[in-house]
Amino acid sequence: MATYRDAGVDRDAAEALVDRLGPIVTKTWHEGVVSGFGGFAAGIEIPRDFTDPVLMLSTDGVGTKAALARDAGKIDGLGWDLVAMCVDDLAATGATPIAMTDYVAVGRIDVAREARIVASIAAACSEANVALLGGETAEHPGVMRPGEFDIAGTALGVVERGREIDGTAIVPGDVVIGIDSPNLRSNGFSLVRATLVAELGLDGEVPGTGRSVADVALEPSVIYCPLVTRLVAGVEVHGLAHITGGGLPANLSRILPPECDARVDAGSWERPAVFAAVADLGGVARDEMFRTFNMGIGFVVVTPSSNAEDVLGIVAGGERRAWVIGEVVAGAGTVRIAPDG
Amino acid sequence: MATYRDAGVDRDAAEALVDRLGPIVTKTWHEGVVSGFGGFAAGIEIPRDFTDPVLMLSTDGVGTKAALARDAGKIDGLGWDLVAMCVDDLAATGATPIAMTDYVAVGRIDVAREARIVASIAAACSEANVALLGGETAEHPGVMRPGEFDIAGTALGVVERGREIDGTAIVPGDVVIGIDSPNLRSNGFSLVRATLVAELGLDGEVPGTGRSVADVALEPSVIYCPLVTRLVAGVEVHGLAHITGGGLPANLSRILPPECDARVDAGSWERPAVFAAVADLGGVARDEMFRTFNMGIGFVVVTPSSNAEDVLGIVAGGERRAWVIGEVVAGAGTVRIAPDG
Repeated sequence: MATYRDAGVDRDAAEALVDRLGPIVTKTWHEGVVSGFGGFAAGIEIPRDFTDPVLMLSTDGVGTKAALARDAGKIDGLGWDLVAMCVDDLAATGATPIAMTDYVAVGRIDVAREARIVASIAAACSEANVALLGGETAEHPGVMRPGEFDIAGTALGVVERGREIDGTAIVPGDVVIGIDSPNLRSNGFSLVRATLVAELGLDGEVPGTGRSVADVALEPSVIYCPLVTRLVAGVEVHGLAHITGGGLPANLSRILPPECDARVDAGSWERPAVFAAVADLGGVARDEMFRTFNMGIGFVVVTPSSNAEDVLGIVAGGERRAWVIGEVVAGAGTVRIAPDG
Repeated sequence: MATYRDAGVDRDAAEALVDRLGPIVTKTWHEGVVSGFGGFAAGIEIPRDFTDPVLMLSTDGVGTKAALARDAGKIDGLGWDLVAMCVDDLAATGATPIAMTDYVAVGRIDVAREARIVASIAAACSEANVALLGGETAEHPGVMRPGEFDIAGTALGVVERGREIDGTAIVPGDVVIGIDSPNLRSNGFSLVRATLVAELGLDGEVPGTGRSVADVALEPSVIYCPLVTRLVAGVEVHGLAHITGGGLPANLSRILPPECDARVDAGSWERPAVFAAVADLGGVARDEMFRTFNMGIGFVVVTPSSNAEDVLGIVAGGERRAWVIGEVVAGAGTVRIAPDG
């Protein structure tokens, strides 16, 4: 790996960190990984079931959820957030994620904390069935404050040429199916900090949940990619959208052909209480909420209406919930969200 | 792409940034890139000359060189630093880099600045012959100060199975050839800030150079990978090392078999004056200098002595300088650097 080495000025801490991280990272390695820990980079085979593979890369971070996690002392879910943000963008193209690397920037190396962060990333990689091939812990003394950290990552995926899913197959009459996100995932945290955290504090109770702000806000992201991979293998899918920053309007519109609109019925799914709490405490308008948060839908599948039951069945088998939340109509490439009364 | 989207709270700035970055990123795309800008991720083909490809990933950052560049208002070389750090780690495994993504974390989006940074990354990607497939600009209001930014990236490379270079072929009698780095590359900047910058200021002259601290310290990194790819194709190479954080001792020892030492003669190459300036101003011991900086050698090739002239010839054809800087002897996997008188 590159990786876990250029750790700045505290060489003893950097060496201790390499020793700690080696076993954590390599436990995610499976048969396809071909090089050892400690070189300049690690490699992975392309799964043998691809005959004409196209490689996809996706880079993302967890945003200011990391700062909230630090303040709350609850950092063990951040790996799920990071891996979900990266691999689910790949899944939305029809690709199968196979590997990840991580980037952790810190003010001062804290070996135990960095090991917790990377252990969390490694556990999430196992859930997503990707190998954590390496990473970088960058110490930025004098630039970041000692306790600060930032987390990003990159996922590598493979898709058979011609099997990429980019929404061009979407036609009027298709149904829009939403898969549930029980929590905030990793988006909108600047607004969460300005509303829930500022008004209630980390230990305050989020109305309607019976749980603290820290517990509700820091719940780890769902990783959709194993479910999406099964869906794509089993059903004809016309479009997939990962609902992150920008919400349903920005992310679903990415895949709409220019002559189609998506009409979404905002009352068609069950919305976790945290979203109403943010809107109420912050006086945040409904449109702004939908453009900032997932609002309870973390992943969208667009499919011919005749396939809707199959999709709902596969999702239920994956122990998530899904609803038909809208339809595709003739239009101009926009997402219209009908009021939820 | 993932990519240039989840830009936090300033949506107008984020949208302006996406508009600005699209043309910059896509100009690095070449024939193998199969998807367009604006989706969830972009893909690239595996070059057809690989029959049993292994995929390598390398993640790295530019460290606190970014902070110095910000202070000096000279950010246009940072792309070279980022791309060099990522692709040259891949080149050190024998892989051919084919694609990159970038991650830029900022306190507040500054569209013009981010466009300059990404344009610099894109230009360096062209130099390295890799496609910039996407990236993420993450706005971290309230966590990073408005003018702060951090830059990281991930490179994807391909190597034919069985052609990976990991140093296991190294034997006593091999020669160690160093390829010149005319500058600091992207390592040791915390120490540079504490010595050159603190003692002389950004505009002060670095002794022996006739140039300012800002100009000397911020000179862009050499990107070795095109040259290394030619070397590996033309000559039998036993080991390759990219000299970054940890310097020659840490990076050359990564590839030494446990029964070999590398004996390096520190007087065998021409050392840029900046290193003596840092050592003198900071009272930094010689060992510490060698463990922190590249000391004028950015990439190392270990090869049978009968190939030394061929390697030196290929390097000279690549318009870099190289020297035989040492030899491999029986030992215990360590790098010994003989005094330079």
